[in-house]
Amino acid sequence: MFRRALLASFLVLAASGAHAQAPTPAQMHERAIVLDTHFDTPANFSARGWSIMDRHDYAVDGTQVDYPRMVEGGVDGGVFVVFTPQRGRDVVADMWSRDHALLRTVEILEMTARHHEHFVLVTTADEARAAVAEGRKFVFISLENGAPLAGDLSLMQTFYRLGVRMMGPVHFANNDLADSSTDPAGPEWGGLSEKGRAFVRHANDLGIVIDPSHASDAALDQMLELSRAPLVLSHSGVKAVYDHPRNIPDDLLRKLADKGGVIQVNAFSGYMVETPRIPERNAALIALTEKYGPQRDVKPEQREAYLAERAAIEAKYPLPRANMDDLMQHILHVVETVGIDHVGLSGDFDGGGGIEGLEDVTTFPALTERLVAAGFTQSDLDKFWGGNVLRVMEQVQAAAAR
Amino acid sequence: MFRRALLASFLVLAASGAHAQAPTPAQMHERAIVLDTHFDTPANFSARGWSIMDRHDYAVDGTQVDYPRMVEGGVDGGVFVVFTPQRGRDVVADMWSRDHALLRTVEILEMTARHHEHFVLVTTADEARAAVAEGRKFVFISLENGAPLAGDLSLMQTFYRLGVRMMGPVHFANNDLADSSTDPAGPEWGGLSEKGRAFVRHANDLGIVIDPSHASDAALDQMLELSRAPLVLSHSGVKAVYDHPRNIPDDLLRKLADKGGVIQVNAFSGYMVETPRIPERNAALIALTEKYGPQRDVKPEQREAYLAERAAIEAKYPLPRANMDDLMQHILHVVETVGIDHVGLSGDFDGGGGIEGLEDVTTFPALTERLVAAGFTQSDLDKFWGGNVLRVMEQVQAAAAR
Repeated sequence: MFRRALLASFLVLAASGAHAQAPTPAQMHERAIVLDTHFDTPANFSARGWSIMDRHDYAVDGTQVDYPRMVEGGVDGGVFVVFTPQRGRDVVADMWSRDHALLRTVEILEMTARHHEHFVLVTTADEARAAVAEGRKFVFISLENGAPLAGDLSLMQTFYRLGVRMMGPVHFANNDLADSSTDPAGPEWGGLSEKGRAFVRHANDLGIVIDPSHASDAALDQMLELSRAPLVLSHSGVKAVYDHPRNIPDDLLRKLADKGGVIQVNAFSGYMVETPRIPERNAALIALTEKYGPQRDVKPEQREAYLAERAAIEAKYPLPRANMDDLMQHILHVVETVGIDHVGLSGDFDGGGGIEGLEDVTTFPALTERLVAAGFTQSDLDKFWGGNVLRVMEQVQAAAAR
Repeated sequence: MFRRALLASFLVLAASGAHAQAPTPAQMHERAIVLDTHFDTPANFSARGWSIMDRHDYAVDGTQVDYPRMVEGGVDGGVFVVFTPQRGRDVVADMWSRDHALLRTVEILEMTARHHEHFVLVTTADEARAAVAEGRKFVFISLENGAPLAGDLSLMQTFYRLGVRMMGPVHFANNDLADSSTDPAGPEWGGLSEKGRAFVRHANDLGIVIDPSHASDAALDQMLELSRAPLVLSHSGVKAVYDHPRNIPDDLLRKLADKGGVIQVNAFSGYMVETPRIPERNAALIALTEKYGPQRDVKPEQREAYLAERAAIEAKYPLPRANMDDLMQHILHVVETVGIDHVGLSGDFDGGGGIEGLEDVTTFPALTERLVAAGFTQSDLDKFWGGNVLRVMEQVQAAAAR
């Protein structure tokens, strides 16, 4: 919303008799291109009755991103994720993963085609900026987990041609490309496999942003060594603030920044504060889902009962929940350690993310208030909310074209 | 347009004082579900400035199918084709073919998503009938040429999951699945290869209609032997009327019908009347295309000059062109040989088809006039224009489900 905001600010200036007037945090938020690098929202696209054009309520159906709420939150676009769970590592699993990812990608393309007045698929930073200028929400596509490519790396080009411009090699479990940061079995390759190294080279060649979120520290380190272009950790935290396998240590944070990359701080409670595992709570939540279906799909006439039962479970087995203070600690640690050019945000929305105060995309202006209070200028906000990632996108594509 | 036509006819009856009044051919055409099994129109989807929602003129841009003309021609839907040229038969060609077909399929899905008020993707006969009832044009998807699957037959399921419900194994040239009817080198497999036989089995298992158009007679014969379900020749003619490799002999026509299948008579001039090869004409047409680009893409300001130059070439090197009499001969031969349950039509539009009098989809009612004059009843028209193909679709899917 840069142009419109600029015009509005000019009119304010003119009306006030050319006396300079400090913009409010809300105005500063409007001026920035605001994106999130990890919307798991496409998982909702095929749900019966769910439309991205409707306004949903997080407290009711648990979803966190839709068009009306993007408008409310001043969110200009994002990286929409094709998430593929790691089903196995044989030829059947490879085909399943390939098909799953192709179909999910197509669902995103169908969404942008169907709602072309409000959304537009983009593949470059310039296209994203053009979308903002014309008032449409931009949609980058990313693969979360390289499993769809594990059986045949030539599919990377297929997904590229379909519009995918960001890919992460691995998810919760080790796979044929890389070690995960969270596989209970521990490392298998000591980082990247030979195929994982080919994944990095091919992504570089095509101009696909590599996203090492979920990869083990060793795999991240090797991607940093190997890649000819900067990387984006699309949703990760820092170990210096909270020691969790999904967060990265300062030496890798510095290496990431030295290569020009960005960490998009993940607003995911379980990776930010000590979160005990309560088997009784988990069992009760599973039983609740078995009774009503997933929260998003609970029948309207059963909503009230569902929410009451869930509240009872939460009351009986409370879990600590990260808040904006925790989030600010991660963000400010990155800024202090490697500077404003290497940080951004992801809510990990519709993928388990969200913390107290940052429950869905409507809450992003509240984070801008905190950032401004912490001293962020307009330029800092511009970088944090989108500029850094768009810069990396350009660098990655320039490196590929060379 | 069944319901609306029925209502109109009821009003006519009521107005005429309940005296029975024979419906006109135009009314009979409206009452039938009218489809074409081979629209090559998706090749136009990615052309700059071309939209299926605009009314085009065949005489000007050479295209033959769009929404306004489907409405004019009383056409309710069709099989939209993902055509893949046979580029080669190595691993690089296999990947190219796979990606080409996936991208073309996605273009069709994006078209139906973008124009969802006017078009709808369908995968069953019932869905097609529902589309007609709600006034939307139905879109089946077919693969013309099995080359996209040649490297990995598991991709058949991928395309199935994307909505494809008809597939032909081969096009102009022999490939890894089957012999073509038109490969200058002659037969290579003597019909189907082992992979081609697997193609038939997998298509049967999934409930995909097998389309042996373009296959050699031997390959067609083997598909008829092997398939557990009826076949549809989506755009073919009969040798008894004109002896051309793209037309089938009466023994195979009978075998096709015995298995419950359908031949959709192809309105493709070069396969219907003796068409000499005039090298000077071809050279002149190639030079014309080099000068102006393909007809569809000729710049508006150059259209007049282009059309004048083309008319001059046509005048200098005239070619005989099939007409409605020729087409009726093919149709009536099929009816006389195997009956009304095994015949339909394809214009092969946007793929080289069209004859004098049947230049684009707006002309379909003219064919209905000819058919009625030849004695077709409403029931015959219902079968010819869509019922036969929808019946086979149901039989194929029932056989798969078993």
